Amino acid sequence: MDMYGMCGKLVSQPGQRDKFIGILLSAARVVGQLPGCRLYVVNKDLADEVSIWVMEIWDDKNAHDVSLKNEQVRSLIAEAMPLMAGAPEGASLSVVGGHGI
Amino acid sequence: MDMYGMCGKLVSQPGQRDKFIGILLSAARVVGQLPGCRLYVVNKDLADEVSIWVMEIWDDKNAHDVSLKNEQVRSLIAEAMPLMAGAPEGASLSVVGGHGI
Repeated sequence: MDMYGMCGKLVSQPGQRDKFIGILLSAARVVGQLPGCRLYVVNKDLADEVSIWVMEIWDDKNAHDVSLKNEQVRSLIAEAMPLMAGAPEGASLSVVGGHGI
Repeated sequence: MDMYGMCGKLVSQPGQRDKFIGILLSAARVVGQLPGCRLYVVNKDLADEVSIWVMEIWDDKNAHDVSLKNEQVRSLIAEAMPLMAGAPEGASLSVVGGHGI
């Protein structure tokens, strides 16, 4: 089975991006220890002051889905929710290959 | 300086995604040998039959820009152009951190 990937775009409330990113970096530390997490990278969009992109690669979709049930992950999601301006967007992906994974 | 990232979405002409992906995997082999390329991953969008996402992480924006002047990369871009249905979309990013890089 191909690996599972996500490119997700999150938009923060004005002035809240750095705080939001701090929570996502905490999430990265948690999910990085979970089975099947190969990549979880947090990025600022250079085009504005509110957008954040997260790149994720997992062994498979199940490993990703299981991570969302982790207590620490759920707590961090709850902490981040009030900082979000709208629903997350993004794509669910089948990882074909490339360099660096 | 933060690392430089890109999340790019490319849409292929109908029926041409696999051929397009083959070219991008060739590009990954080339850029993976260039200075500063940390990640270049090619993905199929699970939502349709034509969309492709490329995740890139470079030491800095200059390393990425230099890669576009590489002869092999330019040749592969020229090969891919007729397979594209419209201009690429995506985001230029400042990589903050996370797991797996």
